Amino acid sequence: MSKKLTKRSEDYSKWYNELVVRADLAENSAVRGCMVIKPYGYAIWEKMQAELDKMFKATGHQNAYFPLFVPKSLFEAEEKNAEGFAKECAVVTHYRLQNDPDNKGKLRVDPEARLEEELVVRPTSEAIIWNTYRGWIQSYRDLPILINQWANVVRWEMRTRLFLRTAEFLWQEGHTAHATEAEAIAETEQMNKVYADFVENFMAIPVIKGVKTESERFAGAIDTHCIEALMQDGKALQAGTSHFLGQNFAKAFDVKFTNKEGKQDHVWATSWGVSTRLMGALIMTHSDDQGLVLPPNLAPNQVVIVPIYKNDEQLAEITNAVNTIKSSLESNGISVKFDNRDTLRPGAKFAQHELQGVPLRIAIGPKDLENGTVELARRDTLTKENVSIEGIENTISNLLETIQNDLYNKALRFRENHITEVNSFEEFKTVLETKTGFISAHWDGTAETEHKIKELTKATIRCVPYDSKIEDGLCVYSGKPSKQRVLFAKAY
Amino acid sequence: MSKKLTKRSEDYSKWYNELVVRADLAENSAVRGCMVIKPYGYAIWEKMQAELDKMFKATGHQNAYFPLFVPKSLFEAEEKNAEGFAKECAVVTHYRLQNDPDNKGKLRVDPEARLEEELVVRPTSEAIIWNTYRGWIQSYRDLPILINQWANVVRWEMRTRLFLRTAEFLWQEGHTAHATEAEAIAETEQMNKVYADFVENFMAIPVIKGVKTESERFAGAIDTHCIEALMQDGKALQAGTSHFLGQNFAKAFDVKFTNKEGKQDHVWATSWGVSTRLMGALIMTHSDDQGLVLPPNLAPNQVVIVPIYKNDEQLAEITNAVNTIKSSLESNGISVKFDNRDTLRPGAKFAQHELQGVPLRIAIGPKDLENGTVELARRDTLTKENVSIEGIENTISNLLETIQNDLYNKALRFRENHITEVNSFEEFKTVLETKTGFISAHWDGTAETEHKIKELTKATIRCVPYDSKIEDGLCVYSGKPSKQRVLFAKAY
Repeated sequence: MSKKLTKRSEDYSKWYNELVVRADLAENSAVRGCMVIKPYGYAIWEKMQAELDKMFKATGHQNAYFPLFVPKSLFEAEEKNAEGFAKECAVVTHYRLQNDPDNKGKLRVDPEARLEEELVVRPTSEAIIWNTYRGWIQSYRDLPILINQWANVVRWEMRTRLFLRTAEFLWQEGHTAHATEAEAIAETEQMNKVYADFVENFMAIPVIKGVKTESERFAGAIDTHCIEALMQDGKALQAGTSHFLGQNFAKAFDVKFTNKEGKQDHVWATSWGVSTRLMGALIMTHSDDQGLVLPPNLAPNQVVIVPIYKNDEQLAEITNAVNTIKSSLESNGISVKFDNRDTLRPGAKFAQHELQGVPLRIAIGPKDLENGTVELARRDTLTKENVSIEGIENTISNLLETIQNDLYNKALRFRENHITEVNSFEEFKTVLETKTGFISAHWDGTAETEHKIKELTKATIRCVPYDSKIEDGLCVYSGKPSKQRVLFAKAY
Repeated sequence: MSKKLTKRSEDYSKWYNELVVRADLAENSAVRGCMVIKPYGYAIWEKMQAELDKMFKATGHQNAYFPLFVPKSLFEAEEKNAEGFAKECAVVTHYRLQNDPDNKGKLRVDPEARLEEELVVRPTSEAIIWNTYRGWIQSYRDLPILINQWANVVRWEMRTRLFLRTAEFLWQEGHTAHATEAEAIAETEQMNKVYADFVENFMAIPVIKGVKTESERFAGAIDTHCIEALMQDGKALQAGTSHFLGQNFAKAFDVKFTNKEGKQDHVWATSWGVSTRLMGALIMTHSDDQGLVLPPNLAPNQVVIVPIYKNDEQLAEITNAVNTIKSSLESNGISVKFDNRDTLRPGAKFAQHELQGVPLRIAIGPKDLENGTVELARRDTLTKENVSIEGIENTISNLLETIQNDLYNKALRFRENHITEVNSFEEFKTVLETKTGFISAHWDGTAETEHKIKELTKATIRCVPYDSKIEDGLCVYSGKPSKQRVLFAKAY
């Protein structure tokens, strides 16, 4: 606990890796690319889940659960989707182990227990779900189907990083079925807005809503909407995606319905998801060289109280006062932890809570009791002040709201300062290397140019923002005519 | 919807399978032995999860998440555990698919993407978790570790049935680490009691708490505590288990700690779990020939309101009254669905809600409005009465409590009537074949006798009940001396 974190300015990537482990959020496991999400990290994820789940239900969705495995023949049915994920599929080929005759006490795969058809561990569930929907849909009366699933998925990534890119990750995936194209498009847009609302209001991370280019689209989608956030190192992070799938999956899985006019038509689809990757975004947006900084809306403990005492008598008096404060805060909906461990000194506790990003810390000693005050420290600004115990529930309630807003506004200012309009490729490269962040530039609309720019600079088109104005210009790379600017950035 | 369910008395097993599918709880999927949990079934599971999660947290546990995969070398480390699960393991051997050169548009496993070490899809997580705990525990100060995980697990079962036995199922698994044997045993017992409380108070299913015999123990455990329930067909169902693992896993994974005396010792362990199998217990305990019967504490909708009308004007008036009733019920914490679909007649709605086990149904028509009453129907007794709209929130609140208690008491009476003391093997066989249920009999304590009885009758020892008196007797099969009765039954 005593060793300081690497500074962001020294090595941002190392800072991130250290922070995740030392703040007890997650760690690498014995399984290549798979992480262990530790209780403190999982508690934050649970708060995210709870809020998202509420938002999904408020927009009419229900949860369900579909199998982990996808038979290969279903997996390959929607060709683009299959092609997009084939190279990163974990595949189950056998269903039994047996004693290894050559190695006492060891097991081996039983060669006689080979599956007739291999099973893909789901990298995403469109295939298994649309194969199921075929049995659920006959008429327009069966539509829409608005389902979400909380699940684990596996994508065999070669280079992994805790939360940001792991072979197994947790996510939710919405899969909806509609009678009309317009309704499916509206759903796609609605869910992208739900994601934006959640990320902005709960995670305090400003995002840009937009649409992906063809080459950045989800495999099998007609259009991918997304929200893009900017990390402190000037790299973008795709925080959520919502896909309009057209009739691609309905056609691949033969899902038809009788419409109101009595005619058969293929069903229209959407899918949308966010994952434990959001934890990475949360960490990288707000945290500092002292450790994690959590927005109050997602902090497992919004307030921690540390007693400062020399003997049991003092501790007893402090405990009395703390119990009153604690229950008054809790009855105001504030989560409070009284850290009365006798195995650590106050200084060590302060350091731990700072590292773990608890928004507010109260320290309380005998002098404070006499004065009717406590010392209140803000994690985000690292400032302290003495505040009166009387009315402390209002003080803290207001302060938590202030912190939530301040974090958002700070991240917003950073983001606004890191969107740069450029009009030449030289400028493009310079901004990308020196200032970093989003680059707003004209692009000729071709995959060729997009690919060339990526090859030369590692920057990709993050999105065509919803609010991008129609404006005549020349492509920053090819010089060909362009109708609007798009956002480029290097990205996680 | 119109076809009647098979009657329980005709074919209990068929009745169950039909009910699960027709009440929209779950269905079989394209993956052998894996089910799709449909939104209505999942909503019940979510209510179970929410309540259990609250109880786990109230007893000091935190959630976390560990990898889906277990490398074979870790899986085999605890030999008994490995031996117990080896025969039902799904094994990942490859991490990539490629285009099949012999089959255009098809994929095949890329032979070059074979994993160096095979990965077992977790059938249970002791191995991966204890391998992780090694890094978390040095001193007694790091103990206890009280962690729970909500996850999917896979056990390649040959004969599967929706909810009761599926290749993939959802569950929670607690994994705790302790400094002393006594503390670990206390935890094992505590969690078995938590399960009993949950199943009795929320699921309205009476259970017998007890300890498993050696041959029925969890693979790798020193002792397995369990709760056993009785289904309407007289078969027992193991509803939850809590294992005292001793130091077995700590030894297999070399997890040691320095105790207060400064000495190194292996850590003591427990694990405990309940699964979506509980859904099967819920269905089979309370439901009837008309369909599902849900205890109010777990019903996604406790009350459904069906309007009876002939024209839009009537519907508008009814809707007005319903809105008032609905918000008054909701403000009393009662979940209500207003079923105003215009695609179904009232009769069809009644049948659907009956099939889906909604505890209370309100029907309301123009006559009712005049009289200031509604028709209130109980699902469990299928009785109806007219009740006054005024004060309906109290009427319904009390009635929901009554239904919850009645369901429990009904199941308890059935269970009490189906525990039969027998003192000879002839009697044993007769009761098992005619009366069914639990048989309380003396047993000589040997695995040999236990095995023989199972072979001859298919009955297993469900548990040695906590409250089994010490009483001299003779084993019902071998005639050898016995100190207490144990409970036998045929079981799911």
